[in-house]
Amino acid sequence: MTWKNNRQLDLRERAQKVIPGGMYGHESTKLLPSDFPQFFDRAEGARIWDADGNEYVDFMCAYGPSLLGYGFKPVEEAAASQRARGDTLTGPSDVMIDLAEQFVAQISHADWAMFCKNGTDATSMAMVIARAYRDRKTILCAKGAYHGAAPWCTPRMAGITPGDRANIVYFEYNDADSLADAFKQHEGDVAGVFATPFRHEVFADQYVVDADYAQLARRLCDEADALLIVDEVRAGFRIARDCSWESLGVRPDLSSWGKCIANGYPISALLGSEKARTAASTVYVTGSFWFQAVPMAAALKTLEVVRTTDYLEQIQRSGQRLRDGLDGLAKAHGFGLRQTGPATMPQILFEEDRDFRIGYGWVTECMKRGVIFSPYHNMFLSTGHGDAEIDFSLEVADEAFRAVRARNAELEPHPVLVALLGL
Amino acid sequence: MTWKNNRQLDLRERAQKVIPGGMYGHESTKLLPSDFPQFFDRAEGARIWDADGNEYVDFMCAYGPSLLGYGFKPVEEAAASQRARGDTLTGPSDVMIDLAEQFVAQISHADWAMFCKNGTDATSMAMVIARAYRDRKTILCAKGAYHGAAPWCTPRMAGITPGDRANIVYFEYNDADSLADAFKQHEGDVAGVFATPFRHEVFADQYVVDADYAQLARRLCDEADALLIVDEVRAGFRIARDCSWESLGVRPDLSSWGKCIANGYPISALLGSEKARTAASTVYVTGSFWFQAVPMAAALKTLEVVRTTDYLEQIQRSGQRLRDGLDGLAKAHGFGLRQTGPATMPQILFEEDRDFRIGYGWVTECMKRGVIFSPYHNMFLSTGHGDAEIDFSLEVADEAFRAVRARNAELEPHPVLVALLGL
Repeated sequence: MTWKNNRQLDLRERAQKVIPGGMYGHESTKLLPSDFPQFFDRAEGARIWDADGNEYVDFMCAYGPSLLGYGFKPVEEAAASQRARGDTLTGPSDVMIDLAEQFVAQISHADWAMFCKNGTDATSMAMVIARAYRDRKTILCAKGAYHGAAPWCTPRMAGITPGDRANIVYFEYNDADSLADAFKQHEGDVAGVFATPFRHEVFADQYVVDADYAQLARRLCDEADALLIVDEVRAGFRIARDCSWESLGVRPDLSSWGKCIANGYPISALLGSEKARTAASTVYVTGSFWFQAVPMAAALKTLEVVRTTDYLEQIQRSGQRLRDGLDGLAKAHGFGLRQTGPATMPQILFEEDRDFRIGYGWVTECMKRGVIFSPYHNMFLSTGHGDAEIDFSLEVADEAFRAVRARNAELEPHPVLVALLGL
Repeated sequence: MTWKNNRQLDLRERAQKVIPGGMYGHESTKLLPSDFPQFFDRAEGARIWDADGNEYVDFMCAYGPSLLGYGFKPVEEAAASQRARGDTLTGPSDVMIDLAEQFVAQISHADWAMFCKNGTDATSMAMVIARAYRDRKTILCAKGAYHGAAPWCTPRMAGITPGDRANIVYFEYNDADSLADAFKQHEGDVAGVFATPFRHEVFADQYVVDADYAQLARRLCDEADALLIVDEVRAGFRIARDCSWESLGVRPDLSSWGKCIANGYPISALLGSEKARTAASTVYVTGSFWFQAVPMAAALKTLEVVRTTDYLEQIQRSGQRLRDGLDGLAKAHGFGLRQTGPATMPQILFEEDRDFRIGYGWVTECMKRGVIFSPYHNMFLSTGHGDAEIDFSLEVADEAFRAVRARNAELEPHPVLVALLGL
């Protein structure tokens, strides 16, 4: 079937009238190649269909939430069964306690859990609790790290005031001196330190954190009686079944979770250690739908799959097959690929592609042949990505490398990107 | 069936271990009478069953979301049909455009819509857009008004820094001089003014706003080129089918919506006028689940019911029947009731009840007989509250008045309340 986008174009025109800029937030395609589908119709497993009926193998997984594949039956059944009883009620259901107990049993550092909706809810709650803990103000964040879209952390500064950032101090990620220096500069007032499991910024190579650095972060927090927060919203359950810094010998005081913890159902969580419990019980945080029972039932089932199946080894294996395959194909076509980060959350950039024109060209060619990759954002594997999906994606990638090579001279950088990155 | 709470007590004990304070947020029962059910099992129409199987007519409606009754079929069917296609995907579905178009068609001031999850998302987005509009900082809010639980607005100060509130200025609601004065004090820097449709604070009588005052707010905003924001999160669609200040001859620039707009499905919205469109397209706001298609399909169906049925007249009539009935019963038993606010969102306080002991006693007696009222928070009517539910509730209320009268001397104020209100 030939790729087409007539309906997509109509929808975009309608959206332009009733949604500012036609679309907003992380699912906006403004930064993606211009033909990228903005509106989707349905999905199943690792497959997604756009508004024109074009079918794709989707390596974005809804930007994370689909861990076990879209419409994964056991989770859908758990959700349906809870839905038949009740969802948004005048109080929580007992499934809230089951879920909190399960998180506490499963995540080594956790002694308690609080549930919310957005990843930003969980990180903001972590910030407020860290400040309440010893009544301090300063929060240390790594420069460029994404912790959500609230005034204290959103990456774009329109509408943000100096007050919103007055006590947010930035250091260089994975740089021991920079972190130690930030502690020194704000001695006596450091409330907490945010850390991502690994560095996963857009338009950049990803890299894992050094164990030495992670352990230093823990030690500095202990010495200052500040809380260490690991933000697992994006990477949770795609690196480990536990908190991802456990393997580095580091146990945080708080960890924020979201995206995939209920395989697409809307719920996020803040987990905490005993030390932070009193502070957590003094802050006032809430939301109209935070106590919905259906997403909690979906999360409980997702945790069971995480605990009892080889889902992690499956996505690691599929991710590695994709990575190895792409490496070989790129070489054969004379391209240098930089594939970084965990194979379950791949980032694919091209060597000698300063203005990203090769990457954008290749991703466009893949997309028109039925595979959705991102030219700047890390991607996500799900257990829906089986051998058939990886094989198909590699075939498509092969043709796309050839096509990009053929029209090399015509490639141009994306205009929005040129403006944004000052290229 | 006799009211019992054995399972409730077990659940509370378990919750105490894995959730800070046993529960948090607006659905915590800490401020409610000590026997109040914290955990619920299922619901249907206006009826809810707690964890011990006690059945109640529920006048909290999940603190607002249930407008058409729990499990309202047409909304559930629209949600199920969308769910079969897809929910949390790599991009929005076309239902997002349908929903934005419908809001624009239905709400007079709206030229565009943005969707999010929490009511707080919508109000925070309004704040950020108002600041982006003319690159100013000051936001005017009425003293004591609830606009959500983010650092800039949460009612409890634990973990909140002066920076978070640096540019939030408070005035007295419905007080023309106070508002005009706030504008004068911050001349040249007022970005926006928050207004609630009517005054609906906890532990206090509610009152409607004067048209004169509302019109002054509009005029002051126009003169200062600041944005007027009406926060409809709590009251939306329970006072009017349109924005609630339309009937006062006032059209806001932004309005925030949530709670009941999808009859319990998790979605909130910010609506805006043409004037605010550019600012809205420059801010960066997003959330992992903001583009879920199922809550949008549920909202689209809810809007249709709002537009095409007499749901509003139904809940007004039921609310008025309840109010008139309670007034008569209270008098007969020698109590003075202060029933304030719209009949669809009743607040019930007792005369000569400074420490709320009579109210708490009466609400406890009602609860144990099968009706959930709140002794301090406004309540909510739904179309699930038919004649049978109102009749039953009045019978229960009658017995409860008698019981409270009988044990008048034993009533004591709620200990948490005593501490909180400094009684």
